[in-house]
Amino acid sequence: MTAARTVEAFRFLTSGPSDVSGLAALLQAGALRADDLICILGKTEGNGGRNDFTRELAMRALEELLAPALSLPAQAVQDRVILSFSGGTEGVVTPHMLAFAQRGTFRTTRSSHKRLVIGTGHTRAFLPEEIGRMAQVHETARAIREIVAGMHLDSPQDVHLVQMKGAIPSATYEQEEAAARRGQPLRSNMVYSRGASALGAAVALSELDADGEARLGDSSICADFSLYSGVASVSAKPGLARTEIMVFANSAYADGDLVIGHTVMRDILDATSVRALLGELGLPCEGQLDAAQRQRLVGVLAKSEADPRGTIRGQRHTMLSDDDIGDTRYSRCVLSAVLASITGDPAVYVSTRAEHHGPLGGGPVAVIVRAAGSGAGA
Amino acid sequence: MTAARTVEAFRFLTSGPSDVSGLAALLQAGALRADDLICILGKTEGNGGRNDFTRELAMRALEELLAPALSLPAQAVQDRVILSFSGGTEGVVTPHMLAFAQRGTFRTTRSSHKRLVIGTGHTRAFLPEEIGRMAQVHETARAIREIVAGMHLDSPQDVHLVQMKGAIPSATYEQEEAAARRGQPLRSNMVYSRGASALGAAVALSELDADGEARLGDSSICADFSLYSGVASVSAKPGLARTEIMVFANSAYADGDLVIGHTVMRDILDATSVRALLGELGLPCEGQLDAAQRQRLVGVLAKSEADPRGTIRGQRHTMLSDDDIGDTRYSRCVLSAVLASITGDPAVYVSTRAEHHGPLGGGPVAVIVRAAGSGAGA
Amino acid sequence: MTAARTVEAFRFLTSGPSDVSGLAALLQAGALRADDLICILGKTEGNGGRNDFTRELAMRALEELLAPALSLPAQAVQDRVILSFSGGTEGVVTPHMLAFAQRGTFRTTRSSHKRLVIGTGHTRAFLPEEIGRMAQVHETARAIREIVAGMHLDSPQDVHLVQMKGAIPSATYEQEEAAARRGQPLRSNMVYSRGASALGAAVALSELDADGEARLGDSSICADFSLYSGVASVSAKPGLARTEIMVFANSAYADGDLVIGHTVMRDILDATSVRALLGELGLPCEGQLDAAQRQRLVGVLAKSEADPRGTIRGQRHTMLSDDDIGDTRYSRCVLSAVLASITGDPAVYVSTRAEHHGPLGGGPVAVIVRAAGSGAGA
Amino acid sequence: MTAARTVEAFRFLTSGPSDVSGLAALLQAGALRADDLICILGKTEGNGGRNDFTRELAMRALEELLAPALSLPAQAVQDRVILSFSGGTEGVVTPHMLAFAQRGTFRTTRSSHKRLVIGTGHTRAFLPEEIGRMAQVHETARAIREIVAGMHLDSPQDVHLVQMKGAIPSATYEQEEAAARRGQPLRSNMVYSRGASALGAAVALSELDADGEARLGDSSICADFSLYSGVASVSAKPGLARTEIMVFANSAYADGDLVIGHTVMRDILDATSVRALLGELGLPCEGQLDAAQRQRLVGVLAKSEADPRGTIRGQRHTMLSDDDIGDTRYSRCVLSAVLASITGDPAVYVSTRAEHHGPLGGGPVAVIVRAAGSGAGA
Repeated sequence: MTAARTVEAFRFLTSGPSDVSGLAALLQAGALRADDLICILGKTEGNGGRNDFTRELAMRALEELLAPALSLPAQAVQDRVILSFSGGTEGVVTPHMLAFAQRGTFRTTRSSHKRLVIGTGHTRAFLPEEIGRMAQVHETARAIREIVAGMHLDSPQDVHLVQMKGAIPSATYEQEEAAARRGQPLRSNMVYSRGASALGAAVALSELDADGEARLGDSSICADFSLYSGVASVSAKPGLARTEIMVFANSAYADGDLVIGHTVMRDILDATSVRALLGELGLPCEGQLDAAQRQRLVGVLAKSEADPRGTIRGQRHTMLSDDDIGDTRYSRCVLSAVLASITGDPAVYVSTRAEHHGPLGGGPVAVIVRAAGSGAGA
Repeated sequence: MTAARTVEAFRFLTSGPSDVSGLAALLQAGALRADDLICILGKTEGNGGRNDFTRELAMRALEELLAPALSLPAQAVQDRVILSFSGGTEGVVTPHMLAFAQRGTFRTTRSSHKRLVIGTGHTRAFLPEEIGRMAQVHETARAIREIVAGMHLDSPQDVHLVQMKGAIPSATYEQEEAAARRGQPLRSNMVYSRGASALGAAVALSELDADGEARLGDSSICADFSLYSGVASVSAKPGLARTEIMVFANSAYADGDLVIGHTVMRDILDATSVRALLGELGLPCEGQLDAAQRQRLVGVLAKSEADPRGTIRGQRHTMLSDDDIGDTRYSRCVLSAVLASITGDPAVYVSTRAEHHGPLGGGPVAVIVRAAGSGAGA
Repeated sequence: MTAARTVEAFRFLTSGPSDVSGLAALLQAGALRADDLICILGKTEGNGGRNDFTRELAMRALEELLAPALSLPAQAVQDRVILSFSGGTEGVVTPHMLAFAQRGTFRTTRSSHKRLVIGTGHTRAFLPEEIGRMAQVHETARAIREIVAGMHLDSPQDVHLVQMKGAIPSATYEQEEAAARRGQPLRSNMVYSRGASALGAAVALSELDADGEARLGDSSICADFSLYSGVASVSAKPGLARTEIMVFANSAYADGDLVIGHTVMRDILDATSVRALLGELGLPCEGQLDAAQRQRLVGVLAKSEADPRGTIRGQRHTMLSDDDIGDTRYSRCVLSAVLASITGDPAVYVSTRAEHHGPLGGGPVAVIVRAAGSGAGA
Repeated sequence: MTAARTVEAFRFLTSGPSDVSGLAALLQAGALRADDLICILGKTEGNGGRNDFTRELAMRALEELLAPALSLPAQAVQDRVILSFSGGTEGVVTPHMLAFAQRGTFRTTRSSHKRLVIGTGHTRAFLPEEIGRMAQVHETARAIREIVAGMHLDSPQDVHLVQMKGAIPSATYEQEEAAARRGQPLRSNMVYSRGASALGAAVALSELDADGEARLGDSSICADFSLYSGVASVSAKPGLARTEIMVFANSAYADGDLVIGHTVMRDILDATSVRALLGELGLPCEGQLDAAQRQRLVGVLAKSEADPRGTIRGQRHTMLSDDDIGDTRYSRCVLSAVLASITGDPAVYVSTRAEHHGPLGGGPVAVIVRAAGSGAGA
């Protein structure tokens, strides 16, 4: 008899981008079967920008480790296990990886609890002219709905994180010129792909109200930031033809001890919302989580942004006018510090730039914990 | 009849390092008399390093503003008003200035409350070979005790902040060589001057226990970091012959509505100690100060440090192995974010490198508030 | 009898942005009359970007020095003496200032030689919608022609440097919206202001051929980079309403010992063109100028650019994909090193970003020397 | 009959640190036998510092490519082929690799020409206390002499480049303490390992005069910089137990078309010495090499350094007082630009920090060319 659908999470602190010894030891010991791996997320100590090669190094090390275990050539590993790495461990952040394994089939009857399940999938390949426009929003929404449909959820409110790598299909000079002549210059860049992907999540999960839906259109993408998702987390990758999607949700038809929740920070200092979320997840804390609570914490995943208006709570910040250090590095450093000062654990996963991810200057935070009484943290 | 000794504080958010319009307006309106100014502290948007010219620009702008008001030549202003600027407004920090004015004479009888008073002074000029050795510690302690003696305090525990610019007298090549030949190579640098100055405060205020006092000596300076002050805040300035000192304390013989307190963070994520301090000062907060509480907050002044052991709570951080961005910028960014997420106010004053300032990886935090019921924040 | 029109040049190496001691000494000694000063150019050790406050610091120090000498309030100094500072002394560059003094009236008869003269002026104030469009090109050309008309030149070929601070009038949100609705979104930014200003010089001095003139229009600005000036050097300044212009040329109706020449580097490694220019100016060098030749060198002023195509001579460079260090810093560092390795003098003035300044990846270089036989360098 | 000892060189421009496609194509086409590979040098687009992971990525990619070709496990590749990568392609530098293959046995009779040969080897493992002291100098000299002895050279003057990875054995805290108690604090760091290794080359190749030899001792290492090698090029690697050595020299007993030469730049602007070297190698150029000459250029390898005295030709530079960008990045950027402006080829190999490599502020440059008349460049 097969077990019920269960997700397990494994966290490894790394000594460098290519350090996969933690995962290797688990595979070696049989504590984790490579075949069950569904995705590995990680923070590496690069700059998170165009010349950040730490992600490639980490993924190459994982491919080499997993290829024999999966009986696949190295270049086929990522078709089986989604590797999602974010560069930039500014400030207190501990470079780390979070591996998720999933196995078993959904229960046929509801349980009294809801537990973490993960669904994966992808959009169709996009044309360059679709990026940053409603075509991308609709197709992303469709793909998310399709994934969600297979996850045995009670409602879209059970989805707490939609992690995406947004497509940015390459365009030829001729395509660019033709688009400009049509009066619809290409938006095939990171800003628009992140923004449209996040709006796709908002549409799929009915996060917009009627007024918001009415306002949604090509001209509101990356322009009307009152429209946003509270669960999306998108990075975008030049050259990627289709958007890759991971949906993290709680299902009443799954077992295991993991639960996910989310909140939306109103701005980068909004510690209050994060504390409220921890309380909802059974980890109430006035100041900082205590050691026992921290044992139950599996992962904190958030999106940061230096408020583009140049102020925080009405007071000037200088993150956007500094030509020595980029705003992406500052905002990750700040949000990681804020989150770690609440949890007491510096292994947080914060990625940055957050168009249509939460309100301007704020952003979504998802937290995965071991359920109370599960004893799993022991 | 003259008023009792009273300190007033004025905070200005600036639009750039040379923006002194806030202070100019107050002087113009007569709300502040230039003659009462005792010191101005400020954070400017530079890198805080050797090529940070924002501090010079800010001080030059203040000198030009204050010279006519004080009927002094520009170059004499700093002999009357201590200007203490710290570069680096990483992350959320709002560039700002804090001006302190003090007037009146001490009350002859105790009041039922204690209020902020500020004492200033300086050491004698140091020889290069004294820096970083017990000679600097003892003379710094002597100067602090002398200042404290004039402040009408009940005990050294009333001192909550000793802000210093540490001396680094210039040495000739011959002095360096002679010192090396004596087997006592010069320590005339920022690291040692900060360290010895902080230990001077610890000695002056009896912060070391008997065991600590026994261990204190030339060889423990910048080596035995279990010895530290919880109230010092030192920057060091090459070329400065004597150490300039400002002591912030509470006196029962003063009036006004300002009160200062301090705590020592055990590490850079130790939000718990900061919350406890706010509670002691009448601003209890489970999560973040509310708007009314924030009105009573005048200043938060802290010292940050990337834990030199390379870990935070046992987990690796990468602040010290990053050759693109310095640890001073990271640690200021982190601590500012942690503090601002507690107070909700990004105008915090964090300076960095903290040898013998609190334990390794931690550091002192001082907070100045308007006393409850003073109504001054309205 | 008044002397004939003569320009004198004074070079000061500085110990920091606010070091004006060199100029102060000359004024003190009477070697230079403040009233004769026409402009001061300088390189300061900032990052050349938005948060570079070294330029402000240098100009403030100069204003304070010159105000009493000119019997003007500090804020009026720049109306009399143009201060043009460029941040960024990457690599070998020695921070320095070049002060130019001009006096006397033009000779009424031609001399057998041509000597440096400097003309200054400005455009009318621009509307935001004019920036980056032909209106800016035409008005800039008109203002340059007007200045040139007063300089007693034989032809526009006598002009070798048109140093400009390009206007970027501030626009309201309403103006931006209105412009977008007209289908002519504002171009009121540094890129377009530099580009249109340079094209204004090209038009004024007839640098475009008939075909180039035919292609010049709104749509070719910052798009068709085959159109360019070989003598323009523009920086642009947000908030500046009108473009300030300095024209450096050789006139047969002037005296003195200074001569200027220019060339256009085909790419950032085009040392050959620079050597040819030095030869034309009487400083032939196979390798590097010798000490006697170097004595005759007064200033080297150039514009650098990281080739936007991402290659140099067909081989990849990484200046544009580095998120730690900006391309402006790299390109200044490279060109300064190339120029200094030819002249043997690291006090070169290189500013960066060069839209329509020379061909893509290349740029103009102007050199000022003391004429052979003038003995002035002795 | 086996061919005479011959070195072949292959240059690949890369599209990123892991791009080994150029080498793969050559192996695939049979133009290069993996078994003949002796070393691969490369410049990758990292920061060259502690958090530069581009070197690891490049080496990992090469190991994966070469392991099957050499029938070795990936981790054994570097025991067969020395991989020497230097991060930092600042400014104009094109990321590239230079692969050297060597085969055949030495001729038994002298030829009329001398041709490039490469010898490799290593020192014994060092104790931490030997690093930066005469023990390291002597053992390094011994190992170099041993390698040279097998290279069929006429004299040590035939050696033009000694490329080394200097040992930095890890030390325990106890070892550090014991060394300090002996009054000989450990020098087991990059500065000292580079310095002592370079002095080892100077000793092995008799580069010091009698006076220099007399002054050489523990106290002159990293102190008396008048002692230096003109052919060493050392990087140092924490954790490396023994120093790895590659000697590049010309032998009259070898064939092929490659020749190496070297010079010592007196300072970072000393283009004159480089031009003289090119002339000696049959590539005389007044300004820049022409296209035909450039065809004969195989590699330029140099060591750069921001003059530690803070001046270049008596004028201040700011590379050492900039806390935003490190001096290593500046000095590589500068020297690469100077060299590329002479050769016209931006694929130069410059690594940095040059203790006892040439005089203070200067450094060695080696150039490998195809011999005139060899036709190999066609």
